[in-house]
Amino acid sequence: MNVTVGRRTRHYRTVTFDAANNAVQLIEQRLLPHRFKIVATRDFRETARAIKEMIVRGAGAIGATAAYGLAQGARAFRGRDPRKFTLHAELVYQTLQAARPTAVDPVNAMNQVRHAMSAGGSVTEQQALGLAAAEEFASDDVRHCEAIGRHGAPFIREGMRILTHCNAGWLAFVDIGTATAPLYAAQTQGRKFHVLCGETRPRSQGATLTAWELAQQRISHEVIADNAAGHLMQRGEVDLVIVGSDRTLGRTGEVANKIGTYTKAVLAHRHGIPFYVAIPLSTIDWSLRAGDDIPIEERDQSEVLGAWGTARARNGERGLRNVRRVYVRVANPTSGARNPGFDVTPPGLITGIITPIGIFKPGELWANRKGLGFAG
Amino acid sequence: MNVTVGRRTRHYRTVTFDAANNAVQLIEQRLLPHRFKIVATRDFRETARAIKEMIVRGAGAIGATAAYGLAQGARAFRGRDPRKFTLHAELVYQTLQAARPTAVDPVNAMNQVRHAMSAGGSVTEQQALGLAAAEEFASDDVRHCEAIGRHGAPFIREGMRILTHCNAGWLAFVDIGTATAPLYAAQTQGRKFHVLCGETRPRSQGATLTAWELAQQRISHEVIADNAAGHLMQRGEVDLVIVGSDRTLGRTGEVANKIGTYTKAVLAHRHGIPFYVAIPLSTIDWSLRAGDDIPIEERDQSEVLGAWGTARARNGERGLRNVRRVYVRVANPTSGARNPGFDVTPPGLITGIITPIGIFKPGELWANRKGLGFAG
Repeated sequence: MNVTVGRRTRHYRTVTFDAANNAVQLIEQRLLPHRFKIVATRDFRETARAIKEMIVRGAGAIGATAAYGLAQGARAFRGRDPRKFTLHAELVYQTLQAARPTAVDPVNAMNQVRHAMSAGGSVTEQQALGLAAAEEFASDDVRHCEAIGRHGAPFIREGMRILTHCNAGWLAFVDIGTATAPLYAAQTQGRKFHVLCGETRPRSQGATLTAWELAQQRISHEVIADNAAGHLMQRGEVDLVIVGSDRTLGRTGEVANKIGTYTKAVLAHRHGIPFYVAIPLSTIDWSLRAGDDIPIEERDQSEVLGAWGTARARNGERGLRNVRRVYVRVANPTSGARNPGFDVTPPGLITGIITPIGIFKPGELWANRKGLGFAG
Repeated sequence: MNVTVGRRTRHYRTVTFDAANNAVQLIEQRLLPHRFKIVATRDFRETARAIKEMIVRGAGAIGATAAYGLAQGARAFRGRDPRKFTLHAELVYQTLQAARPTAVDPVNAMNQVRHAMSAGGSVTEQQALGLAAAEEFASDDVRHCEAIGRHGAPFIREGMRILTHCNAGWLAFVDIGTATAPLYAAQTQGRKFHVLCGETRPRSQGATLTAWELAQQRISHEVIADNAAGHLMQRGEVDLVIVGSDRTLGRTGEVANKIGTYTKAVLAHRHGIPFYVAIPLSTIDWSLRAGDDIPIEERDQSEVLGAWGTARARNGERGLRNVRRVYVRVANPTSGARNPGFDVTPPGLITGIITPIGIFKPGELWANRKGLGFAG
């Protein structure tokens, strides 16, 4: 999407590949929303580190980064022995996988790259095929998000007030995003609307990343405390809710997503407000049979007990470049916290699931599993 | 309630009067939860400033502070002319009222003090009656909270997990509090239970004040992000919700309280979890006929866009006394925010209202208006 730095506006993807320098280029997401910076990794170990240290985050974005990282590592191989090349590529694969061991997207992405390379004969041919496959993975990610935007855009009507949660935006993918895709598509089609970004405590991705994205795209928006959603719905100030999903159960239609999604769904249901979930097909889980079986990660207490932000620069420091990002302890110093990272929204609260191949009711996923990528 | 400073535990009220020094003693609430300190105001102007600058906050606490402040100002009068004394007392009254012009509690409290003084003959007599009336107001506040505790304690059963919102604790009153009163009473009766303190963004009074109170009273508790309430209810980890109220409509049973209260009520209703509101009689509004008529204050955007907390001390600074309290900007720097301060919970979501004279269904308030203090 577009990013304005100083007076210059240009289009960026979260992840791209610089073939001349064999480098993966990434938006340094840990500096957002306070600073926009592109970093380049010089070798696959640096790329793995970028994934591990959360310079890049989000399902599609880390998938593409791992795909590029494998191609990058393969291209760095000096020699002509295909057997040694395959051993080297395997080392690259393992290194990148170990950077975020619980994530499924890097594995799926790298499997595509590895499979493509295996069709090549010479080392040079395999290297070229690997990069082409990584580029294809990234382009597919963009195309899927575009398709979500196409299907979801008709729901975003002129003058609507749309509530979002967390960040399922372009920063989490290669471009466009999932929950944000219908918004960007509707904007392209010339419609004006207003987005309420749910803050999304404890990590505040709505207030930081989604608000930054919308500001860059010049979409009218405001941040709200998660606590304000119910009140605004009650007063008729929310027309639609749209969120992403970390895992959607293909068998039941249950949606696991960032903590607080369930609350917004319950509120929307009470007020008769449509609640949509936008997902890429890769997040559909066809194996689990019940939402209760989804493991809910208990994250570090410090996230709930404090907040990350920028303090005012002092001693003559000026401008965003010198703003210090600090953690402040908000809560009582002797108290602990519970911090479940995700919750599960039942199908009865979901109006529709927006996928790259169309809109489905949660209960229709299983019946349409062939088209939705079920391989079992 | 009890506060431990160093190794010493003793009982404090939020507001007391030091007759020997004609001083109002206040807990410096702006330093909590990071530091506990008692400040004394030397004259009524300082007392007014303490109210204005939020050294003291909360309905009952500012009521008692204003009552003591009026007595303090009256006692500082030098002379024997009752007419001049009355003029002076009126100046004191106006000064204290102007410190928090929208609040009703200081006015009610000071009217009691003024009425008591008017029964006296000499200046000395009036001064003594004024202080006695202020002490009585403070003691009544404590007794009302004790009565709420007595009526509410039976709901707090052994092993329960209780969710709270914001701070309707002893810091907001002279002692004991309203929403916290049943907890403290149940503890005194020997029962063990666990409290989940809803963080209560944007001002985080649950994470700061309520968590501090419970820690001081050694009640088992944890802070949660407001977003986690729905998930924890869904997983059966909340048995009861108890909150306070800023204004309860006597005619309809609607409850205005800190933003996010409505959301917790909707969630509790969905999960069949009892939802109680604890209130002193002074917060019942007998005039308004609909919750929509309650003006909802739109507060400063900065509360939503950032957070207050303590940064780690640096350069050899040590201990809580040197911890710097700072505001950090969390949200995207170019985004704005909506910040409604309160919401309104309809009677259908409220299991019961705990008052000093007993438990009522929201719909029963009007029929019982005589006992509940309706003067109209």
